Amino acid sequence: MPFTIRAATPDDAATILGFITELAVFEKAGHEVEATDETIRASIFGEASVTEAVILEADGKPAGFAVWFYNYSTWQAKNGLYLEDLYVSPDYRGAGAGKLLLKHLAQVAVEKGCGRFEWSVLDWNEPAIRVYDAIGAEPQTEWIRYRLSGETLKAFAASN
Amino acid sequence: MPFTIRAATPDDAATILGFITELAVFEKAGHEVEATDETIRASIFGEASVTEAVILEADGKPAGFAVWFYNYSTWQAKNGLYLEDLYVSPDYRGAGAGKLLLKHLAQVAVEKGCGRFEWSVLDWNEPAIRVYDAIGAEPQTEWIRYRLSGETLKAFAASN
Repeated sequence: MPFTIRAATPDDAATILGFITELAVFEKAGHEVEATDETIRASIFGEASVTEAVILEADGKPAGFAVWFYNYSTWQAKNGLYLEDLYVSPDYRGAGAGKLLLKHLAQVAVEKGCGRFEWSVLDWNEPAIRVYDAIGAEPQTEWIRYRLSGETLKAFAASN
Repeated sequence: MPFTIRAATPDDAATILGFITELAVFEKAGHEVEATDETIRASIFGEASVTEAVILEADGKPAGFAVWFYNYSTWQAKNGLYLEDLYVSPDYRGAGAGKLLLKHLAQVAVEKGCGRFEWSVLDWNEPAIRVYDAIGAEPQTEWIRYRLSGETLKAFAASN
């Protein structure tokens, strides 16, 4: 199947939200999606955006997407590319589309002079992990990500 | 001990590199520090910078630092604050400086409308983990970070 990749535009906000929601449901976190068409449009395409996004198309129809931002490594003193979300719609799986998106992002990372290309995966998502292992990506299993959010974040910020 | 926090400037590049190196040695990764004064100056303070940095001072002398960037959550459709490095020099430990820096960053996150304040810790760094647990931060243990870098990244980007 011939896939193409193009830059996302604000008119893709509803399409992107649909893919985000499908991916979150797969990740058993559908209830955590607070995003709306409007907040996706503002946060990805607005003034304070730190992200970039592409749409994967098959026969002119949206078949998937990827959203990323640039992170930073003090050890390298270089920016890196962090892939926040990558998704291929079930109808279009098994034809290499996911790997095509990953390769596209790897090319963006190299062009931008990034030292690393990173993303995160749920530890039970074995099909994805097999792909990541196959392309030579290395799991950073020694590191644990910590998170403060919502009221806990606000309370800590306001504490004495 | 009275600590103060100020924005870092390009003149702090050597100080920051010193702290980065001390932290990397503590993290058993001193050999992974490729940064130099010049690359720190360019990557943190130059045109393509995605980071911000502060210097912690005690009695007018640098006692630590923090470097962060903004990440993004598709589920929240919001930017987040990701703390890449936080370090307090051994001479100044045990007086609450680390927590002061964390609180400063939490305040920046709240002011910027971030949905999350995140960072990563090595799984054997128990003193740090105790602090993070105590302030209510939650470990994202279900997620594994994957990384492509160096020649492996370049080879994948160039593959067919």
